[in-house]
Amino acid sequence: MNESTSFGDPVQGPSTGGKLRAKPLRLDTFRENVILLSRDCTALRPERLRGVRKVEISARGVAMLAVPMLCDDPALVSPGEAGIPEPLARRLCVRDGEPVQVSPASPLRTLEAVKAKVAGESLSLADYEAIARDLAQHRWSDIEISAFLVACASFMTADETLDLTRAMVAAGDRLTWDRDLVADKHCIGGIPGNRTSLIVAPIVAAHGLLIPKTSSRAITSPAGTADTMEVLARVDLTEPEMRAVVEQCGGCIVWGGRVNLSPADDVLISVERPLSIDTPEQMVASILSKKLAAGATNLVLDIPVGPTAKVRDRRAALRLKKLFEYVGRRLGLDLQVLVTDGGQPIGRGVGPALEARDVLAVLRRDADAPQDLREKGIMLAGAVLESDPALAGGSGAARARELLDNGAALAKLEQIIAAQGPSPIDGRLGPLAHEVTARRSGKVEAIDCLKIATVARLSGAPTDPGAGVDLLVKAGDTVRVGDPLYRIHAFEPSDFGFAIEAAGEDPGYRIGT
Amino acid sequence: MNESTSFGDPVQGPSTGGKLRAKPLRLDTFRENVILLSRDCTALRPERLRGVRKVEISARGVAMLAVPMLCDDPALVSPGEAGIPEPLARRLCVRDGEPVQVSPASPLRTLEAVKAKVAGESLSLADYEAIARDLAQHRWSDIEISAFLVACASFMTADETLDLTRAMVAAGDRLTWDRDLVADKHCIGGIPGNRTSLIVAPIVAAHGLLIPKTSSRAITSPAGTADTMEVLARVDLTEPEMRAVVEQCGGCIVWGGRVNLSPADDVLISVERPLSIDTPEQMVASILSKKLAAGATNLVLDIPVGPTAKVRDRRAALRLKKLFEYVGRRLGLDLQVLVTDGGQPIGRGVGPALEARDVLAVLRRDADAPQDLREKGIMLAGAVLESDPALAGGSGAARARELLDNGAALAKLEQIIAAQGPSPIDGRLGPLAHEVTARRSGKVEAIDCLKIATVARLSGAPTDPGAGVDLLVKAGDTVRVGDPLYRIHAFEPSDFGFAIEAAGEDPGYRIGT
Repeated sequence: MNESTSFGDPVQGPSTGGKLRAKPLRLDTFRENVILLSRDCTALRPERLRGVRKVEISARGVAMLAVPMLCDDPALVSPGEAGIPEPLARRLCVRDGEPVQVSPASPLRTLEAVKAKVAGESLSLADYEAIARDLAQHRWSDIEISAFLVACASFMTADETLDLTRAMVAAGDRLTWDRDLVADKHCIGGIPGNRTSLIVAPIVAAHGLLIPKTSSRAITSPAGTADTMEVLARVDLTEPEMRAVVEQCGGCIVWGGRVNLSPADDVLISVERPLSIDTPEQMVASILSKKLAAGATNLVLDIPVGPTAKVRDRRAALRLKKLFEYVGRRLGLDLQVLVTDGGQPIGRGVGPALEARDVLAVLRRDADAPQDLREKGIMLAGAVLESDPALAGGSGAARARELLDNGAALAKLEQIIAAQGPSPIDGRLGPLAHEVTARRSGKVEAIDCLKIATVARLSGAPTDPGAGVDLLVKAGDTVRVGDPLYRIHAFEPSDFGFAIEAAGEDPGYRIGT
Repeated sequence: MNESTSFGDPVQGPSTGGKLRAKPLRLDTFRENVILLSRDCTALRPERLRGVRKVEISARGVAMLAVPMLCDDPALVSPGEAGIPEPLARRLCVRDGEPVQVSPASPLRTLEAVKAKVAGESLSLADYEAIARDLAQHRWSDIEISAFLVACASFMTADETLDLTRAMVAAGDRLTWDRDLVADKHCIGGIPGNRTSLIVAPIVAAHGLLIPKTSSRAITSPAGTADTMEVLARVDLTEPEMRAVVEQCGGCIVWGGRVNLSPADDVLISVERPLSIDTPEQMVASILSKKLAAGATNLVLDIPVGPTAKVRDRRAALRLKKLFEYVGRRLGLDLQVLVTDGGQPIGRGVGPALEARDVLAVLRRDADAPQDLREKGIMLAGAVLESDPALAGGSGAARARELLDNGAALAKLEQIIAAQGPSPIDGRLGPLAHEVTARRSGKVEAIDCLKIATVARLSGAPTDPGAGVDLLVKAGDTVRVGDPLYRIHAFEPSDFGFAIEAAGEDPGYRIGT
């Protein structure tokens, strides 16, 4: 029970800690800043901060907050030392033995806003600005981020979503491009194999619109656009490198992580992921803050709807669409939201290498290229092209099809790949392969997106780019008992076992009579 | 953004990890189980679990879940070792070099319930039972606990509170006493100096009712009952030791932490504390689960109401009272809830040693003993005594006053102190002393409980039992500019500075004209 509390009270004290010697530790505390202090620390008494208060640590003018962890092993951290694991060591840039100042951290004022949010109040733009700054500077602990996310999940207005988005953009860098029209395309995710960006971006760039695409790596899915592109080219480009590619090619497909775009979003995502929090408000703020920070002026947004997609029905899709439109347009974005069919995975491959294979098959116009991926790519690219004032209204899709069929899109992707540099990873398929077969005969009515993603993820994707699921049969096809439905690829026997077991419980195919 | 997720999916896999050698580390990760694994770990690939999944570690039949932390220093943790910090090492009881089995943990089914709670659903008794078990076994990570607490804060029915309470009792030990009537008394907290338990328990035991009082240490307040009692006697008794004291004295005042009463509550509290979450539902489940587990049959509950107390107005107090009654009575507790005046601190001292001084002054009938503490102690003890069928209705307070005034209560406390054993701590007052003075003349109208608690806490209480605040003037007294209002005691210069600064911003006294 919390009795009268000092947490979050407006007590701003002078730093009355002391100096310690930095000892960088090759220990990785993931997103959270952690500092190891001896129980007999000479600078402060860490035991009394434990579980309630953070430590402020500063070196050469950079100050960070960290959660204290107590150490009773002087060989690891002596009383005169501050043990500094990753990522704190990287964020502070301290060298071994360098003096650092540590003191009990003053309570963060933004945590008062979290308390208000937990109590069901609306927060102001100023609150969200301060929150985004503190998040970007890694000043919150994990449990505070978690509390904020869950409080927002229970109640958040459209205006708060707008304010959070605006604040998240402001808390990071913002790319600017020397063009009035900067195109972008994004999907809210949830549909395995839905790798249309690798088709849309080359088509749009081939047409002559600027499309500097920054994308994410998979969070809980078997592949993100950046993971799939990495099978074909280097994606961890710095901002100058990215600019050079865009200047040369009119587009790129890079990982957004090297550029400091909406860093508060990265922090929120790292906690949303293990908690599976995926509310409309967080989705809108996350996606739009990233796109605005990347300098997009015109965005086509894909919301797939289906019984196993992120958005389960048309009503929910409409609500989400309206929220995207409300926030996007108030922030000056020309936004077009497309609600698409999310009834089954798109294409055949699920996992970075398998998806890259499908994308190349479409761009190369192979006879066996997945038609659904091709058609969806053309539809979305067409929607993006409609933003070109020079193009007659309604002719976007035809123009997209033309650029795909005449080989211009393939040539553009090849140019982008050459400009970004060779892929650093091995994209060969996993040698462990297992076919999951039909348990009854009939027509495939639906494929469970969640299940296929789970099996592909368990098989090792995206950690192993060549792991994943290769769908051999799609909805509409007819199968007989024992026919293969999909093939699992893996490298690690344990992953392979997990994936086969998950598929064995229920392959994820609904087969009618 | 979470794309299709594997978190919480019903994937139960075989343990396909491997064996490592245990390496206990003298590192304290506080409440959370953390395991340090080499990035090149021979048993599993920790990198792919990072941030999303826990590790199951088992030794000699005991299995625990732990959050993996990556280590790149083979001198600290080699690829064949599992680094095991506190508290995991204690919970697993592993020796250095002992083989342990590690594997990726199967997703916890209870986290599905957390997701449902976040989505605004009601949970069932079975859900809460599973949750209490997983909490008691330290299977949840900090962010999961935080998410659960905040989700409960936004919506929780009275029946869910009942179910959570019942589940928390069942997840731990339960004391039984060979008496039909086992008395207890509890305050929801928030009022500095309100140390009535040390007066009530001796009076009740002197009367002959059984009152085996387990109490908590301060969480965010400057002193808990256990902290104050520790100035007078040993409080960390084991269950057999506690039973021996109760058998001899008819009562005790011990710290509940050595007895495994409602361990799920301890886990929740450790996250509620830094988050300052203190909802009626969590308060009811926390207090009643502890009291029921301690074997109480008759409980007097003190809810102080005041502008700076935990409960701010009568309406909120009434709501809280009804919730306590609803849950308590359905769980077979004879519950009497008293709504009391929480307009200012009780007694004069705030901090373990200062509060112990006040308690002894009351029991010794010293001329300068704080009258408000005496009267409140008599009132509460009287309410407890009313549960004695042998006593005429309405005579409880008179009987309590008699036992206090005839020295029986003092003798009883001295007997309990002797039975529990000598205090292990130094209860002398802090040598650093500073008087906070009145800024205007007039009558003291109110004293801010939160502010006084903050100043006392900053001064070092309860870590330094002799630190705290000594109130020299109470509401109703008249002061002149420059008159001392209270004295701050501290040991550490930094604490002293923080406390003086907080008092300097606003001493917490409302002085009228």
